[in-house]
Amino acid sequence: MSRSGLFSEDRSAEVVVDSFGEGTDPRLREILGSLVTHLHAFVKEVQLTDEEWRTGVDFLTATGQRCDDVRQEFILLSDVLGVSMLVETINHRALDDATEQTVLGPFHMVESPDRVLGANIALDGGGEQCLVTGRVTGQDGKPVADATVDVWQANADGFYDVQQPDIQPHRNLRGLFRTDADGRFWFRTIVPRFYPIPDDGPVGTLLERTGRHPNRPAHMHFIVAAEGYQPVTTHLFVDDSPYIDSDVVFGVKESLVRQFVAVDDPDRAKELRFDNPFRAVHFDVTLSQDGDRTVASA
Amino acid sequence: MSRSGLFSEDRSAEVVVDSFGEGTDPRLREILGSLVTHLHAFVKEVQLTDEEWRTGVDFLTATGQRCDDVRQEFILLSDVLGVSMLVETINHRALDDATEQTVLGPFHMVESPDRVLGANIALDGGGEQCLVTGRVTGQDGKPVADATVDVWQANADGFYDVQQPDIQPHRNLRGLFRTDADGRFWFRTIVPRFYPIPDDGPVGTLLERTGRHPNRPAHMHFIVAAEGYQPVTTHLFVDDSPYIDSDVVFGVKESLVRQFVAVDDPDRAKELRFDNPFRAVHFDVTLSQDGDRTVASA
Repeated sequence: MSRSGLFSEDRSAEVVVDSFGEGTDPRLREILGSLVTHLHAFVKEVQLTDEEWRTGVDFLTATGQRCDDVRQEFILLSDVLGVSMLVETINHRALDDATEQTVLGPFHMVESPDRVLGANIALDGGGEQCLVTGRVTGQDGKPVADATVDVWQANADGFYDVQQPDIQPHRNLRGLFRTDADGRFWFRTIVPRFYPIPDDGPVGTLLERTGRHPNRPAHMHFIVAAEGYQPVTTHLFVDDSPYIDSDVVFGVKESLVRQFVAVDDPDRAKELRFDNPFRAVHFDVTLSQDGDRTVASA
Repeated sequence: MSRSGLFSEDRSAEVVVDSFGEGTDPRLREILGSLVTHLHAFVKEVQLTDEEWRTGVDFLTATGQRCDDVRQEFILLSDVLGVSMLVETINHRALDDATEQTVLGPFHMVESPDRVLGANIALDGGGEQCLVTGRVTGQDGKPVADATVDVWQANADGFYDVQQPDIQPHRNLRGLFRTDADGRFWFRTIVPRFYPIPDDGPVGTLLERTGRHPNRPAHMHFIVAAEGYQPVTTHLFVDDSPYIDSDVVFGVKESLVRQFVAVDDPDRAKELRFDNPFRAVHFDVTLSQDGDRTVASA
């Protein structure tokens, strides 16, 4: 007797892909076809043993079971394997000199409060005082007035307000600003601190087993948006932060790193109601006009 | 400023692999290196969108959360993607004419009871009566006496005893036999029935979305073992079973399919205490001598 389509080591991935029915959505077929092909190639390449397969099953199971309303261990896994950053990069390639994107991260979970230009978003009193200035322009160099600049960051201890609802003031270190007629924005805050991603689950174990630390270098989150332009979700990284060269989620892009310079200027400090010296950073944002941005086809 | 090792689309997988510390176990490094490389290649090949990535995260999370003491949804996922069968095949390649292996499956969870040759393992009275005969030999053709032949199967409704503890008799359709001096074994049972794998979870949804049925063709499980030989974990498949060409877990191998012939012989039926006509199947098992079998290096 002879049966076509039975499983064999040589044709293993092909046989699985051939099992998909004719009515399968073409995009789903494309995605699963590629996934199965790479998965089988991986198993063959490393000659995965029964025991290693079982370890993999157990790891994935534990990862799923670590997820709850406030913890998404599979996103963490995707993050530390560089997959989140790769998907981000593929889907939001910056054109020419437009500001590069990076990962959104899990802490943009509440709306930032409206604040006037110059406001101090550091409500808890800790950390090194810092003035942030910048300008939003289009790729043609023209200022973008009335752009929204949404900012959020960790405090001097490396925690976001939502992680410490009983310790930090409500909406600490968050603000939604609007650029002035010349496209400029400025506000007062503190220099953010590096922090570890949650590492008490399976992903933490994976990091430990591969000799990796769980830290993200210090950064400030930005979403900048304006009518007629593509919004940009990005970070401003602190040049001299620990881990700037080894972000556990691979989010650092060279173009997003800035020096937070020390300013020794008693008069300016007084104006800002800062202690002297203080720190200052400048971050210009360039937006692509609508329709200009390369995105992956859906 | 210039930082080596920062993430880029081109070097994405390389950057992740380079993050593994020097103390990483070499085999773990090899496995994760290959996995990350294929995972990134997959994302790039299909240009995975943000939304598709999120769908994948949600699917994996739901799969992990569907697992409990009696349900392993990630093993089911591995099964329906052909990964379990591939791992099985790689690790247990049969030499020459030795009997091929196939998946163990999840129902060998209790010890089969010792039974004498000829015993009837069908204790619940349903189904088509069937005589199973066979002989265990080495690759040199010599009979293997005192080999253990461990058998388990589903009943005429497609359920194993452990799935219906309140309905089926204890240890129904399970038996542990020993071959006679001539390597022969025989026992009475019923023709097994095809059955669906559990399809009320994420894996069932995946099957539905890809136009696949959830069924395994009718089969009888065997583990045959003897001193001085490699044990073999395999199935005997029923030639005319529905789904014989489309096993949802890809377990069918041509060499393991047998006709269950109808026998019209009133005298023989009477001897066997069967109704006439009955069914009969012959399944010879060839074992490799210890050390002869090709296995993947650990």
